[in-house]
Formats: sequence, structure tokens, C-alpha cells
Amino acid sequence: MTNRIFNFNAGPSILPLAALTEVREEMMNFGGMSILEISHRSKEFDAILAETKQLVIDLMKIPSGYQVLFLTGGASTQFAMIPMNLMDKAADYAVTGYWSKKAVTEAKLFGEVRTAFTSETEKFARCPKASEIKISDNTSYLHITTNNTIYGTEYHEIPNTGNTPLIADMSSDIMCRELDVSRFAMIYAGAQKNIGPAGVTLVIMRDDLVARSYRTLPTMFKYSTHAENNSLYNTPPVFPIYVTRSVLRWIKNSGGITAIEKVNREKAKLIYDAIDTSNFYKGTAASDSRSLMNVTFTLPNDELTEKFISEAKAKGMVGLKGHRALGGVRASIYNAFPLEGVKALVAFMAEFEKKA
Amino acid sequence: MTNRIFNFNAGPSILPLAALTEVREEMMNFGGMSILEISHRSKEFDAILAETKQLVIDLMKIPSGYQVLFLTGGASTQFAMIPMNLMDKAADYAVTGYWSKKAVTEAKLFGEVRTAFTSETEKFARCPKASEIKISDNTSYLHITTNNTIYGTEYHEIPNTGNTPLIADMSSDIMCRELDVSRFAMIYAGAQKNIGPAGVTLVIMRDDLVARSYRTLPTMFKYSTHAENNSLYNTPPVFPIYVTRSVLRWIKNSGGITAIEKVNREKAKLIYDAIDTSNFYKGTAASDSRSLMNVTFTLPNDELTEKFISEAKAKGMVGLKGHRALGGVRASIYNAFPLEGVKALVAFMAEFEKKA
Repeated sequence: MTNRIFNFNAGPSILPLAALTEVREEMMNFGGMSILEISHRSKEFDAILAETKQLVIDLMKIPSGYQVLFLTGGASTQFAMIPMNLMDKAADYAVTGYWSKKAVTEAKLFGEVRTAFTSETEKFARCPKASEIKISDNTSYLHITTNNTIYGTEYHEIPNTGNTPLIADMSSDIMCRELDVSRFAMIYAGAQKNIGPAGVTLVIMRDDLVARSYRTLPTMFKYSTHAENNSLYNTPPVFPIYVTRSVLRWIKNSGGITAIEKVNREKAKLIYDAIDTSNFYKGTAASDSRSLMNVTFTLPNDELTEKFISEAKAKGMVGLKGHRALGGVRASIYNAFPLEGVKALVAFMAEFEKKA
Repeated sequence: MTNRIFNFNAGPSILPLAALTEVREEMMNFGGMSILEISHRSKEFDAILAETKQLVIDLMKIPSGYQVLFLTGGASTQFAMIPMNLMDKAADYAVTGYWSKKAVTEAKLFGEVRTAFTSETEKFARCPKASEIKISDNTSYLHITTNNTIYGTEYHEIPNTGNTPLIADMSSDIMCRELDVSRFAMIYAGAQKNIGPAGVTLVIMRDDLVARSYRTLPTMFKYSTHAENNSLYNTPPVFPIYVTRSVLRWIKNSGGITAIEKVNREKAKLIYDAIDTSNFYKGTAASDSRSLMNVTFTLPNDELTEKFISEAKAKGMVGLKGHRALGGVRASIYNAFPLEGVKALVAFMAEFEKKA
């Protein structure tokens, strides 16, 4: 693959070339079969699943007492499964963007949703400080969205929730930085931004949450089903899990999350510095909530924005158009996005500003 | 791939080599990205989804008035979504094996399940004739499982249900034979046996069923959500859909379902003839219910069965062990399973019998 371009898409998104190469080379070599044909009950897949799970545990330093599950249906399905399984009468939600709001909509079907924080009146330009989060009485959990793809914001402080279980949608920033997993009761993420392809959802859940049961639920919608069957109650998405393994191997070989975080901070800083030293580009996120994964900024007007995006594309930088809710430019620079691509963007930003 | 073996696995299972080759060759070539990285909102994926859908419509000759959806969670998730969405107070289920029973278990959570037929006392050795199905009054639908992987049985007659919607789980025999889709209100199938890899579920559904709404449901569990959004409400399983396209292209290039059915009948007949002309092998399915996809038979005792399976494996024929519920041998010969593999099995059966 010689003509690889800089893929700034918000998700599904860029994957490490090492992982793609591994997947492509091994594709047909599973004991006379392709990975696309092997049984999910085969020893080959047992080994893949076990290694993928162990990589998640090792990379995130997950303590004992947690389940690591590989499900389907993305975060959108988790928005429903969480309240179905884990909400007794009420739960707290911190609302920091489009996806948190979607989570709230589903939760309302199952009980009372209490707003622990919202930045909606501030156009979702920031995430709360830990001290701003209000935990209500007799709440089943607090739900947060650690990174908000559309608004380019990310929690810089993880709330202290005491005995209240903290549940986090990390679809767009999982494994981008070191976090103390023991502060969370549940972490979930669609794989397709930071750790794999579309088609598999990672769920990390404390055993006491797995054991909760407030409602009679269909077998497939109970976390306990998947925990008791090691994600093999039904046929799992074999290939997406397999590709995720290759991506996690790449993270490990790159030095783990500590090393990845260092590069992520370097990449993000380059773009934020370019924004901050310019009067032409303007960041949309509050500086205490800036995302490491999605850098959002605007240009003086829509015409220039369009020109910027189309000229960038001509230079091999694609996926830079901001979400329609915000307009402007969004550079999604997930784990696998290379530093050289960020440097190319920053150089282009300077050049474009000079010309404009 | 030189050392390709004969894969008799029950699912996930063998895929056409032409499809695998196409997938492998194209894997990195999506405008400077891999298929594993492209956005589900890209024009590249739009084209893949549209073609896959059209191939389903063309191959199965689906009349207008049906939706073709690509979901996740397999048949196991459909077992719940069907009654959640489509059962008012009661529904009829024909019970012909392990998977039908699972469907019943989920349906009971949402209303009264009436048994339209069961062959449980006959060890699930057969499927009903059309005349044996009892449709109850005021039922929301009749649910059948057209092929029963474990028991090697398949419906030879499709029930006449009049105005009652007929819903069929075709996970293990979809597109294996010509069927008049207009007799069904809904057809669904996990892709991983006959039409693709694990990770995507095909749902074909008449518009009046999509419009049904008896309960307030989470967004992801409503068929209408997926129908209204052309299976793009959330990030779909991009790669499994893409591989499915390659498999469907192969069916089309092979002459469509008519041609595939002809080969399937030839393959199945070879094994059934071998069973019928022997006193050593014994078929487990009633002759009026024999499956084209899963041929199940027993040997005189467990020791011989084990020997048969291990010697076959040494000859490059894998996945022949029968399900533990039935024991014996199961040869799953889905669409992509080659005629030469069946001939090899039949030759081995004769040789093994002679030696024994």
C-alpha cells in the first residue's frame, strides 16, 4: 500500500498499518481456512479471544473483579442495555454532547434520569470539573461520556463518585491515555475509533454490576449472559475481534498506553499550538476541556472553511469536515493517526492562513 | 492459499474462494485506506451497502414492499426483537429443534406462545408438512425455523398461513434454494453459514411488519429505526457487510440461486445415497425432512464414530463431529462447500465402511 493518505475521519477511522498488514497477510492462514471461515468454537478462535482479552487487561491495567466482554451493536445498544440492566429507579447522567443526549433518551425509557451536569447552554464547549458533578441520592449510577467527538471536548478530571458506580462511554478515547480503571464501574466503547474496526463493542464491567438484575430481560440483552459465556453465548463477530487483537498488539509493541499517550499529547499540542498562535483559526472547545482525539476549530467564514477542506483533500488529508452541528474543521487524530500527518496538517494550516 | 482443506463446520463456515480472494486483494484499496478504515458515511460504503442490498433483492427475487436490513447480534437477538416488535398478545411457534426452542424462550417474555407444531417427542427428526401446522386465532404471526442445523432437518413444504404473517429463521439455509419470498412476512439469517462471515444479520421484512408498534422500545431494538435509516442509524458492521457482498457476487456469478440449488441438491444426494445404500451409516432425519445443508448420520457405535472423524480429519476433512445433542457425524455442506469435497467424503465413507 503505497498511496496511503492521511485519514482524519471521526470513525470508523485510521488503523495502524502494522495491524492491517498482519491481518492481510494472515487472512487465509488458519489451518487451511481463512479467519473469515473458522468456527467461534475452534481452538484458533479461543486463542484469539483469550489474547485479545488479556491485551485489554494488560494495557489498561484492569484489576481483578472486572469482566471484559466483546459485544455487538455499538455504543447505541449500550445506551439501552445499561439502564435495562443497571438502573433501579433513577440514574445520573452528565450531558456533554450529542452522544450523552442519546444515552439519556434511552435511559428515560427505564426510569428517572437526573442531570448531574450539562453544558448544553454553553454549546457543549466543555466537560465538567470533578467538583461540578452532582451525584443524587439513591441513584443507580453516574453516566459520563469521556470524549465528545463532535465538540472536541474531553474530561480532564474523572469525577469522584464515592460509592456510586461510574459508567463511562469511552468510544472515542479508549486507550488514548492512562486512566485508573478502578475508579470506573463500567467502561464501554465501540471499537471503531481507537482500537479496531466497526462491528465489535468492548465492555469492561465490575462483577457487582454484572450481577445486578432489576428487570426480566431477553437473554441477549443481559450482561450476565455474555459474562457467564465468555462472550461466546452466540456467534461473536469473529473478524472484528481478530482485527482488534492486531491493533492492541500494535499498542503493546508501541510501548503501551503510556507511550501512546505521550504521542497523542504531542500530536494534539501541535494543532492546538497552531490554533493558539493564530488569529485566523479559533478553537471551539474550552481550553480546560480540549480533546486529545478530536481537535475542532473554525475559520473566519464558511467559504474559507470549504476551501480549506478541499485544498487539504487535494494534499491527501481527508475527513476534516466538522460535524454539521458545529461546522468548521475537525481533525480526528486517534491512536493510530501518525505524527507526520499532524505535522502535514499544521504546515498546511500555516500556508493556508498566509495565502488567505 | 494452496493447502485449503474441506471445512464441514456448522457455522461460521466455508466461504467461496473467489470471495475470499477478492476481499484479500482489495483490502487496502479504498482510496488510500483499507476497507477496515473507511467511514460508514463514505461514498465507498454507500456503494457497497447499495450493491449488497440489491444483490439480496435480485438473488431472492424480493418483491416491492419489503425492507432489506443489515443488523447485528445474530439470530439470537432476533429471537427477542421479533416478539418485542411484532407480537401483540400471542404468537404461534413451530418447534423443530434447539434454535426454535430458543426463539420460544425469548417470545414467552412478551406474550403467550402457542405451539403450532412440535417434533420434540420425535427427537426433532422431522419438520412438519404444511397440513400439520395449526394457526391459532388472533395470533400475531407464525414463526418457523426452516433448517435445523443440529438435527439435519429442513422444511420441504412452506406452510400456508393465509393472512397470518409467516416469519422464518433461515440462518442455516438462506439462499440455498429457490423460495417464493412473497409467502413470508419476514425472513432473517445470521450471515455466517450461507452468505457471509460472522458479524452481520440479514433481515428481510414486509413494510406492514416494520410499521407495527405494540411496545415502547429502545431505539436500537426497533426495526423501524433501521428501516428508516437504511441500516445506517448507527455504525454498521462495515467489513462483514462488505464480505457478504463478495459472497453474493459469487452466487450471482455462479448462476444465481437456481444454479446453487442444483449443486446443493447434487451434493446432498451424494451423501444421502451413500447412507441409504449402506447398513453401516444411518441417517437421523426423516426422509421427508432431510436438509440440503446439514447431513447428519450415525455409525454403529461411538468408537467407530470417533475413529471416522479423526481419520477424516487426517485426510483434510474437518468439522464433521455431530452436535452433542445427537452425536454421530454432521456434514455441513453450505452453498460454498465444493462438490469435490462431498465426493471426497463419500469416497472416504465407502472406504471406512469396508475397513470396519
